[in-house]
Amino acid sequence: MTDSVFQKFIATLTSLPGIGKKSAYRIGFHVLRMDESQFKIFLDNLTEFKEGLGFCKICGSITQEVICDVCTSEKRNAKLICVVEQPEDVFFIENTGEFQGKYHVLNGVISPIDGIGPENLRIQELVQRIAKEGVEELLLATNPTLEGDATASYINQLVGQENVKITRIAHGVTVGSTIEYADQYTLGKAIKSRVSL
Amino acid sequence: MTDSVFQKFIATLTSLPGIGKKSAYRIGFHVLRMDESQFKIFLDNLTEFKEGLGFCKICGSITQEVICDVCTSEKRNAKLICVVEQPEDVFFIENTGEFQGKYHVLNGVISPIDGIGPENLRIQELVQRIAKEGVEELLLATNPTLEGDATASYINQLVGQENVKITRIAHGVTVGSTIEYADQYTLGKAIKSRVSL
Repeated sequence: MTDSVFQKFIATLTSLPGIGKKSAYRIGFHVLRMDESQFKIFLDNLTEFKEGLGFCKICGSITQEVICDVCTSEKRNAKLICVVEQPEDVFFIENTGEFQGKYHVLNGVISPIDGIGPENLRIQELVQRIAKEGVEELLLATNPTLEGDATASYINQLVGQENVKITRIAHGVTVGSTIEYADQYTLGKAIKSRVSL
Repeated sequence: MTDSVFQKFIATLTSLPGIGKKSAYRIGFHVLRMDESQFKIFLDNLTEFKEGLGFCKICGSITQEVICDVCTSEKRNAKLICVVEQPEDVFFIENTGEFQGKYHVLNGVISPIDGIGPENLRIQELVQRIAKEGVEELLLATNPTLEGDATASYINQLVGQENVKITRIAHGVTVGSTIEYADQYTLGKAIKSRVSL
């Protein structure tokens, strides 16, 4: 039963993020059960997606054009830029409906252990945008990890002297959760960053 | 940011079993980050998988040939057939290394509410195999659900009169788990089906 074609495809699927072996089996059998036309639609969809999308020349997020919708929009506040690690973070923030500024994707974080320094990220492009677009506030939305915090600190030191207000997304207790489930570091940050009612 | 090509692909991904919206986003961005050659390998792999595999003419499980490895093997006990709902169940049972017989995939379960009767399953083929292959034991490994149990009962009544021993996989407390976590029905079955030490 160790059909090599099958096992090879399972290995391909488990190399995708968030897919374990059991999920890979389920997806594999699902694909095998597709009829010819369903499979053709699936393939066309995948190819259209891969070939039709690219990264915005300005902010680095996903777009079907050279410049993305957010960058070309006149309704968005061009004086406020939200800095994120990855293009997917733009989607998650857009989903909240709480942000009206523009974005800048770094394409990673500073991580000496992986050999990634500031020069490997889109930080130079950010500095140029700040000057060129007259940015007034930079909201640093890198992840609350060691690397994300270090990258935020680095950008803060780099552009903090200029006339730009630097802010960081708040870290605190998850909405809808209870204090009991928050880890001590998150709870500590939630207390330190307490807000007036 | 509601790029239609992107959203369409996310919808395609979430239609696959076990993939939610967040996983779909992660997989989508992973595909976008693949370079041309990585994407080509991925596509080739997918096409090879879909076009290279089919269902065994005898047992109904997955194979690259007309007849699968297990059905052609002379090392497997041909007098013992394990009856399962889906081709994937064959993989899960093979992984245990505990079964040395052959298989028969029903391609579903009897489910009147979905309009699936015995005539829609590979039950007639099973009856023919029992006669032709001189089967001595039928291990019914349909799922311990209402439909799985009903299908096992149906097969038991259909072929129980013949000279075939009918067995059912044991249901009981999960290995490595604790009694406290077993639901009352499973625990009840575990007590009823207790074995001597």
